[in-house]
Amino acid sequence: MKLVRFATGGGGGPRYGIWRHDHIRALTGNPFEGVAETSERHAPHEVTLLAPCNPTKIVAVGLNYRDHAAELGMTIPEEPLVFLKPPSAVIGPGDTIRIPAVSSQVEHEAELAVVIARKAGNVPPEDAGSVILGFTCLNDVTARDLQKKDVQFTRAKSFDTFCPVGPWIETGVDASDLAVECRVNGELRQSSRTSRLIHGVEKLVSFVSSIMTLEPGDIISTGTPSGVGKLEPGDTVSVTVEGIGTLENRVEAERI
Amino acid sequence: MKLVRFATGGGGGPRYGIWRHDHIRALTGNPFEGVAETSERHAPHEVTLLAPCNPTKIVAVGLNYRDHAAELGMTIPEEPLVFLKPPSAVIGPGDTIRIPAVSSQVEHEAELAVVIARKAGNVPPEDAGSVILGFTCLNDVTARDLQKKDVQFTRAKSFDTFCPVGPWIETGVDASDLAVECRVNGELRQSSRTSRLIHGVEKLVSFVSSIMTLEPGDIISTGTPSGVGKLEPGDTVSVTVEGIGTLENRVEAERI
Repeated sequence: MKLVRFATGGGGGPRYGIWRHDHIRALTGNPFEGVAETSERHAPHEVTLLAPCNPTKIVAVGLNYRDHAAELGMTIPEEPLVFLKPPSAVIGPGDTIRIPAVSSQVEHEAELAVVIARKAGNVPPEDAGSVILGFTCLNDVTARDLQKKDVQFTRAKSFDTFCPVGPWIETGVDASDLAVECRVNGELRQSSRTSRLIHGVEKLVSFVSSIMTLEPGDIISTGTPSGVGKLEPGDTVSVTVEGIGTLENRVEAERI
Repeated sequence: MKLVRFATGGGGGPRYGIWRHDHIRALTGNPFEGVAETSERHAPHEVTLLAPCNPTKIVAVGLNYRDHAAELGMTIPEEPLVFLKPPSAVIGPGDTIRIPAVSSQVEHEAELAVVIARKAGNVPPEDAGSVILGFTCLNDVTARDLQKKDVQFTRAKSFDTFCPVGPWIETGVDASDLAVECRVNGELRQSSRTSRLIHGVEKLVSFVSSIMTLEPGDIISTGTPSGVGKLEPGDTVSVTVEGIGTLENRVEAERI
């Protein structure tokens, strides 16, 4: 099932819905507390899709594909290397990534992201599935020049618009061996499979939850494969995860 | 004015109040959207003080006192070095810091913290005051061994209970030259003044807001002076900022 969060032109707050092949069926409630189908349906062109959840935290994982660690010249850590992106960086499908004037090397990073269903701490790997609502696509946009300068990843990965998420939460997919791809203006730039993750989804959920209590809607992003590269104003960048969908965003220079 | 967030034994959600020398006057609403005084008053012993805000993000600053950078053997960065702590790490005054089994070197870091009043981006330093609600004390608890191992600060600073905040938000203080102190079991461990910050409050608010849109209740913590040291189970650690108050917490080993 594809769970979308959407807005309609008529106003009113964001709502959840189920994306079906030719329409969206509106839901009451939210998937973390409970939903019910309504009779309301919309054609896809009548709605604006939003980021499919409101995370209290976005925990991302660095260097979780061997080939990406190699291209950055970084050593693969024994344990997952986690960092945080702020909720203020989240944008939805179709929103615009803004390149800040302070960076001259903003790059795409296509990732499979896990959406957490419920509050949970110290989850054993074998129980990870029980705290996962589903999966989505995430672009861990990174100012590579600032990442290198600061050593700490935070500033480089925290600018407003640097966390596109969507287009929806897919609840019915086995994420253990899915293609992960990034295209810029239609050209394939990153291509790998989640079976090549150094630390898989269950391990990551367990590891992160041993540090921080997870909350409903929190996101754990699993890391990016090789092929990261520069985004330029005017580009269209898309992240596709097999069995989930495609998250597409335009790129603009920050207006100052 | 000292704004507290508190719970009473009788249940009901957290509320805001004004801390006066011998009582708390309950408020309706919250200081970000508007408050009004009620006739309800409580003796201090009748209430439990909570962390005085619910941040969407906690932005902390590394190496912002020269003597602390020196004690860690780290170079002082030209620009503020920011990192994030997750909201799940926040605890209030009187709550217990839990030392995770995975670390054998958990340390205190006493800090002055800024509480943001309203949504704001790209704030010039001269306007920083207009987006600040007030100031509080923060203990940036850090697993020093994991910080050194990971290089990235995130895991070391993100464990549940690693972000004591409080005891209240002081709205009527000039933060430019306040004593910042940390005591462990009554013994003075850290002692400096905010006038020795490399990057002062206005600069930090401006810098952070140029990266991430600030939200009401967000926290910017200004960094810690020298004297950081190990916490042991059974310790009582307190952070005092002159003109604000004292944030005290007990330390326990994680129960596993």
